[in-house]
Amino acid sequence: MISNTDVIVVGAGLAGLTAARALRAKGLDIHVLEARDRVGGRTVNHDLGGGHVVEAGGQFVGPTQDHVLKLAAELGVGTFPAYDSGANTYVKNGKARRFSRGVPPDVTALPDIGRLIARLDRLTRTIPLAEPWRTPNARELDAETLTTWARRGALTDGGLDLLNILLGSAFGGTANEASALFGLWYFAGAGNEHTPGTMARITNVSGGAQESRFVGGSQRLSLLLAEGLGDAITLSAPVRAIDQTATEVAAHTDGGTWTAKRIVVAVPPHLATRITWSPLLPAPQEALFQRMTFGTLAKVEAVYPEPFWREAGLSGQGVFRDPASPVCSMFDNSPPEGGPGVLMGFVGARQWRNWAPKPAKERRGAVLRAFSAVVGARALQPSSVIEKDWTAEEWTRGGPTSVLAPGVLTELGRWRDVPFGRVHWAGAEHSDYWNGYMDGAVRSGEQVASEIIGAEGALS
Amino acid sequence: MISNTDVIVVGAGLAGLTAARALRAKGLDIHVLEARDRVGGRTVNHDLGGGHVVEAGGQFVGPTQDHVLKLAAELGVGTFPAYDSGANTYVKNGKARRFSRGVPPDVTALPDIGRLIARLDRLTRTIPLAEPWRTPNARELDAETLTTWARRGALTDGGLDLLNILLGSAFGGTANEASALFGLWYFAGAGNEHTPGTMARITNVSGGAQESRFVGGSQRLSLLLAEGLGDAITLSAPVRAIDQTATEVAAHTDGGTWTAKRIVVAVPPHLATRITWSPLLPAPQEALFQRMTFGTLAKVEAVYPEPFWREAGLSGQGVFRDPASPVCSMFDNSPPEGGPGVLMGFVGARQWRNWAPKPAKERRGAVLRAFSAVVGARALQPSSVIEKDWTAEEWTRGGPTSVLAPGVLTELGRWRDVPFGRVHWAGAEHSDYWNGYMDGAVRSGEQVASEIIGAEGALS
Repeated sequence: MISNTDVIVVGAGLAGLTAARALRAKGLDIHVLEARDRVGGRTVNHDLGGGHVVEAGGQFVGPTQDHVLKLAAELGVGTFPAYDSGANTYVKNGKARRFSRGVPPDVTALPDIGRLIARLDRLTRTIPLAEPWRTPNARELDAETLTTWARRGALTDGGLDLLNILLGSAFGGTANEASALFGLWYFAGAGNEHTPGTMARITNVSGGAQESRFVGGSQRLSLLLAEGLGDAITLSAPVRAIDQTATEVAAHTDGGTWTAKRIVVAVPPHLATRITWSPLLPAPQEALFQRMTFGTLAKVEAVYPEPFWREAGLSGQGVFRDPASPVCSMFDNSPPEGGPGVLMGFVGARQWRNWAPKPAKERRGAVLRAFSAVVGARALQPSSVIEKDWTAEEWTRGGPTSVLAPGVLTELGRWRDVPFGRVHWAGAEHSDYWNGYMDGAVRSGEQVASEIIGAEGALS
Repeated sequence: MISNTDVIVVGAGLAGLTAARALRAKGLDIHVLEARDRVGGRTVNHDLGGGHVVEAGGQFVGPTQDHVLKLAAELGVGTFPAYDSGANTYVKNGKARRFSRGVPPDVTALPDIGRLIARLDRLTRTIPLAEPWRTPNARELDAETLTTWARRGALTDGGLDLLNILLGSAFGGTANEASALFGLWYFAGAGNEHTPGTMARITNVSGGAQESRFVGGSQRLSLLLAEGLGDAITLSAPVRAIDQTATEVAAHTDGGTWTAKRIVVAVPPHLATRITWSPLLPAPQEALFQRMTFGTLAKVEAVYPEPFWREAGLSGQGVFRDPASPVCSMFDNSPPEGGPGVLMGFVGARQWRNWAPKPAKERRGAVLRAFSAVVGARALQPSSVIEKDWTAEEWTRGGPTSVLAPGVLTELGRWRDVPFGRVHWAGAEHSDYWNGYMDGAVRSGEQVASEIIGAEGALS
């Protein structure tokens, strides 16, 4: 079966759906092909019953993430503040200590983390976000890992350890795996055209990227976008091959072929290399996409009749510098209605690598013990536990985003968004601002739509 | 169409063919599925006419590479010494200078390169080759790039620049892209069970990995292995999907399905992730294979009526520390008959990234100018030029081998060879000794055959 449209969109995550909506708004005929049996990509709601949901994927939104916030407003999806009252908890080698705002109370880390943040926020301002390879000293910064960069002048490993706790969820990786230039660029993008990125905006709840959540769950954005597109989406239709000629592009699925003038490929770059391309992807772009490997991340959520830690004056937020914990950081993830109570922990990077191969029961027990170190023994008796390992998802195979190793940005970075004939790229990894976030996905979808309208002209 | 055998082998490179031969020798029924329309993988002969060949892929062999040498002897393929007489040439910023053996005559590099080699050869002896993550200080060595490691205590960038020239062909990458631990492990493997690896054995012609070549071209090994296997090979049959159950494994090609008790997947790890797996690859193994990205490398060979540089007392060997040269190193690659004359240059890493996107004519002119800096103006008038860009090959997409970024070996390295149910792994990247070389490929093929015979028992 062969069907024709103006623009094919591969991938019904936030980037692909945003692009499809914008293209259709300009009068172009579009069709979205999605490998999964659902829309939303790395955002997915989990139904708790009784009208409550939690998210098993991307969920937080915060200041300067204007593009996803504007989209939500247009779709009528509200936000609510993530729970951020009461004491936070720092667990170091099994011992819990309460703290209020900001950096965990670790005397071995505080001097270094303060200096690290200052160095980082100073350097990020030197990075031209769209062309990080033009940063002063770019070659040097891309020749080393974020670890060796962070360690320079540090007194102990404390600052680096806390950075790694953050990267466990932000990168699903460690500072060892990231280029210093990539790391700085990532933090530099935690802002918008008017507000420079800062590390605090990545790490904070109030005032940062974890400030708010979407009423009804983040997947609602994609569900509503999809509703608006009606039957212009085919689910369970992995695109196996893409061919293009001088006049046309064709996407082949197991159920049939779509032809079009243009195609938007809005899937993780490392998965884009797995499509059978004819002609082949340009070699430098292929080399780059190979190197845009995904981190390793799982989310574990425990559900309780109510958020019992709140009345004990606890925020439910925890930070773990603790080799025995599979969790690097945790949050109160209860729905806005105030009940049931949900604790959510990130199992990322080294924690994931140690714990993912173990039996589910053992891992779950260790996660609940980690939660109990923060909120007490009641955490050991959840009514249910939801585990979502994004590395086990065929159409993501990792999470939350791609992390660039040393040498990649300066050598190959400029190929990231270059159209390949009739093929255009989108996805959270294709945004300079909020790379890897929902806001980056929406931005990339808007950008690719403009690119195509520039090339094809609008019909309206 | 469904066909059955005992063991399917995916990939008719040296690893797959060696495995197939060893399994059949034990009485097992095998069938090899190859994506290309030829055997040999990263080895391929180019016919010069008149009974002469040169290689467009892997070609050199040297001391301690006993496994590929033994295979060659069994197949009746002889070796001959690579041409290594006369003066070598070092081209620095356009200026050529002759030198005899060893390290190029660069006063800004010599002190550092001497110290670098000494540090390297000392440390490689501390690496347990089969478990590099148990190296003393493994975490530290895997937390930094080979660049920052090499720079420590260096006086200038000279030593590092020469290391990068070497890695341009050895890794198709730079020291920026490699973990220090991976780099040391790679050099540690340049030996065998009786002879520790050294850096000199990687770099040398006489006494090193470039010492000899195979009469008739390196692809002859695979051609003869394939001849021995007869109709047990299907060419032009990319394996698109692999399914396994408790009792059987199935490999799906466009032309039909093969079922078997076991399957050997002997393709580059990053391409193995592109197969559609059911069940999915174990997540940590998938995460590792994603990160075994291939370098970027092309070979350019210019053919002349005779090797005219020899009578001028030149070896034809050149080393380029020269931003204007697309070539990082060059060799006399003439057939053993002594004619025609062939000069071969590696265009790797940064050279490849600068030059691969340019028009072929421009690149070819620059390569010939580089050759002429070494052997004189006659190099500008070749009778033909052969360019083989391995990044443009659909079934390799890079070259010569996979290079591990920081953090990968210690975090995920142990998953490299772990069988996945009925799936077993082979290929040059699966060998501890001579990883990425023909010898490593042959070793991995022998190892995987033993592994399967251990699991299934032989029929003989």
